[in-house]
Amino acid sequence: MEDVYESSRKLHEEHHGKLAIQSKVKVETMQDLSLAYTPGVAQPCREIHKNEDEIYRYSAKGNLVAVVSDGSAVLGLGNIGPKAAMPVMEGKAILFKEFADIDAFPICLDTQDSEEIIKTVKYLAPTFGGINLEDISAPRCFEIEQRLRKELDIPVFHDDQHGTAIVVSAGILNALRLVKKDLSTARFVINGAGSAGISIATLLMEIGAANIVMVDRQGILCEGEEWMNEAQKKMAEKTNQEHLHGDLATAMKDRDVFIGVSAPNIVTADMVATMHADAIVFAMANPVPEIMPEEAKKGGARIVATGRSDFPNQINNVLVFPGIFRGALDARADDITEEMKIAAAKAIASIVTDEELNEDYIIPNAFNKKVVQVVAKAVMDAAEKK
Amino acid sequence: MEDVYESSRKLHEEHHGKLAIQSKVKVETMQDLSLAYTPGVAQPCREIHKNEDEIYRYSAKGNLVAVVSDGSAVLGLGNIGPKAAMPVMEGKAILFKEFADIDAFPICLDTQDSEEIIKTVKYLAPTFGGINLEDISAPRCFEIEQRLRKELDIPVFHDDQHGTAIVVSAGILNALRLVKKDLSTARFVINGAGSAGISIATLLMEIGAANIVMVDRQGILCEGEEWMNEAQKKMAEKTNQEHLHGDLATAMKDRDVFIGVSAPNIVTADMVATMHADAIVFAMANPVPEIMPEEAKKGGARIVATGRSDFPNQINNVLVFPGIFRGALDARADDITEEMKIAAAKAIASIVTDEELNEDYIIPNAFNKKVVQVVAKAVMDAAEKK
Repeated sequence: MEDVYESSRKLHEEHHGKLAIQSKVKVETMQDLSLAYTPGVAQPCREIHKNEDEIYRYSAKGNLVAVVSDGSAVLGLGNIGPKAAMPVMEGKAILFKEFADIDAFPICLDTQDSEEIIKTVKYLAPTFGGINLEDISAPRCFEIEQRLRKELDIPVFHDDQHGTAIVVSAGILNALRLVKKDLSTARFVINGAGSAGISIATLLMEIGAANIVMVDRQGILCEGEEWMNEAQKKMAEKTNQEHLHGDLATAMKDRDVFIGVSAPNIVTADMVATMHADAIVFAMANPVPEIMPEEAKKGGARIVATGRSDFPNQINNVLVFPGIFRGALDARADDITEEMKIAAAKAIASIVTDEELNEDYIIPNAFNKKVVQVVAKAVMDAAEKK
Repeated sequence: MEDVYESSRKLHEEHHGKLAIQSKVKVETMQDLSLAYTPGVAQPCREIHKNEDEIYRYSAKGNLVAVVSDGSAVLGLGNIGPKAAMPVMEGKAILFKEFADIDAFPICLDTQDSEEIIKTVKYLAPTFGGINLEDISAPRCFEIEQRLRKELDIPVFHDDQHGTAIVVSAGILNALRLVKKDLSTARFVINGAGSAGISIATLLMEIGAANIVMVDRQGILCEGEEWMNEAQKKMAEKTNQEHLHGDLATAMKDRDVFIGVSAPNIVTADMVATMHADAIVFAMANPVPEIMPEEAKKGGARIVATGRSDFPNQINNVLVFPGIFRGALDARADDITEEMKIAAAKAIASIVTDEELNEDYIIPNAFNKKVVQVVAKAVMDAAEKK
C-alpha cells in the first residue's frame, strides 16, 4: 500500500495545492458588474469611510482569518522557510473552512525577524477578522503573539501554544475525571519546555493544577539552572516547588500525569512504572510518540493519549482552533482571553458524558460535528462576559 | 427604481462582502485529514524544501494573486484608507476569479509609506504567484511598482496604470483603424497627467504614437514648467515637441484624438469642434465623463468612448487584467514586460474584426468570453519569446 506521504504528495500535485477563492455573488451581466464593482461598490466604501466598524457589515473581514507563518518551526521539519511551509498553511486554512466555515488564507512571510513580522501583520490587519499564528519558533513566537495581542484590535492566537494547551487540558480534565483524581492535587510532569509545553503548563495552572514539574533536554526546570531561556526561567518560578533537579526519569517518579511534547521513544515502560497508580500518559510527539501506547500500558499506565489517529484518544488541535475562532469572530471579540481558552477546554471535555467516558474515549473524535458548535458557544459566552 | 448605490450596499450587506475560501480537496475522514494535513503534508513540504521551485507544483501559489492597496486613491473617492478600500479589492479579486479562474485575495495595507509597502509586499511574496497593485496614489505608485518589479521574481502589475493604458491603446488602435488614420502621425491630447495618463502616453508611444500633448490641472506639460512633479517632467521631455503652453482648450485644437482620464464635464462641444475631422474622443472620467457622448458628437466627434456600460465603447480594465495575469501565470513569467503589455493591447483590438468594426463597436464587450483567452495566449507567447 502506498504510504501517506506519497499519497499526500500526489494529492497536492494533482490539485496544485488545496485552496481556491470563491465568489459569493454572481458576475454574469453588466448589472452584476455594476453592483459588485464600479460604480456601485463606491457605496459600501463610503459607508465604511464614514464609520470604519461598518467594514464588518460590508466586507468579508469578519469571517477572514490569516494563517501566518515564517516557516521557522514547521511540523517536525524545523526551519524549512516560508515557501516549504505553504502546504501546511494551506492545509490549516482549509481545515478552518471545513470545520467552522471560516475563510482562512495562508500568509507565508519571507522574514524571520520578530519586529518585521509584527509590523507586517499589523499592516495586514485591515483585511482580517483574526490572526492565527502558526509554526513560528520559540522564543520569538511568545513576543510576536504578546505584542500583536496588545497592539491589534482583532483576536490573535498562536495555535501551537494555545490550541495544544486547550486540547491537552480538555483531555486531562476527562482523564482525571475517569481516574477520580483531583486537578489541584494531581502531580504532573511535562516533558518539552518549548512553546507548547509552557503553554500547557500555564493553562493547567490557570484551571487549577498546582503541582507541575517541567523537563527539557538539559533536565528539570528549576530556579537557578543556568541553561534556561527567559521563558523557561519564568516557568521555573511557578513550577517545581520541591526544587527537584535531574533528568526525565527523576521527574517522572511518583507522578500522576505525564505530558510529552518532545521527542520520539524517550520514555520507557520502566519509567512509567515509577509513576503513581492509574497513571495518565499523554505522549504527543509526532509522528512517533515518546512511548508507544502498548509499552505505556505495560508500564502500568491506565490512560494513554497520543497525537495519532491510529490509536485511541487522539489529541488533535482541530478540536480547538475552528471553534475558538468561530466563537471569537461571532462575538467580534478583540482578543482571545484566558477565560475564553479555559471555556474552550471545558467545553471540549464536556462533550464526553460520564456514561461514554472510558480509558479509550477521553476526548471527542476530530470529526464530531458537535465540537465546533459547543466550543464556539462557550467561547462566545466567555467573550461576552468580559 | 432603486439606484445602483443602494442596490450595491444591500448586496454587500446581505453577503458580508463578496469573497470566500474554498477547499479543493475534501476533508471528511481521518484519511483525508492525514493527506491534506499532518502527517502526509510533510511530504510536499519536503519536496519544496529540497527545490523551492516545486512550490508551484505542490501549492496554490501559481494561481494566487494579491490585490494590494493602501486605500490612498480608491475609485473617484480619494484617500479613504485601507478599510474603506476593502469592497473594491474584494470586487477586483472576484473578477479575477470569474473572468480568468485566478484565485485573487484582497490585501488592504495599514500603511501609506512607500518603503513599508514595498517591504510588506516582498514579505508576502512566497504565498503569491503575482501582485496586482490597485488604487495607490501617484507618484508613490510609480516607485512602488518599479521597485517591486525589480526586486521580486513574480509578476507585479499596477492595474490603474497599465491595465488602463492597455485597454485604451486597444481602443485607439481600432478607432484609428476605422477612421483610417495612422498612429505615427495622429495628433493626441491626453488630459490628466497622473498615473493613468502617463501610462497611456507611454504605451501609445511604445506602439508608435509620435505626437502627444499631455495636460494636467495647471495646464499643458512643457519642459521648463515649474509646477510639474518628477514623473511629469520626464513626460514633458518625451511629449509636446511643439512646446505648446496653455490650457486644455489650446491643447485640443487640431488634434485627432482626445483621451481624458481626468474630471467630469471639463470638455465642451465647442472644444471638440476645434479638433480635426473624424475626431476620436475617449472621455473616461468616472462615473461622469469629461464630456457626455451626445455633446461630443454635437462637436463633431466621430467616435466616442467612455468608462460607462450604458454608452457604446466601454473602456473597461476587466478586458485586460484577467487575461494578462492568466497569461503571465501560465507562462510562469517573472515580470510583465512592455512586450507583454503591447501584445495584450493588440490582442484585444484584434477581437473586433474589420466587418464588425464601427463607430459604436471599437472594443469587445466586457463579457466577451474570447477576450481572456486571446489576451492570455498573446501574453504567454510574448513572455516566452523573451
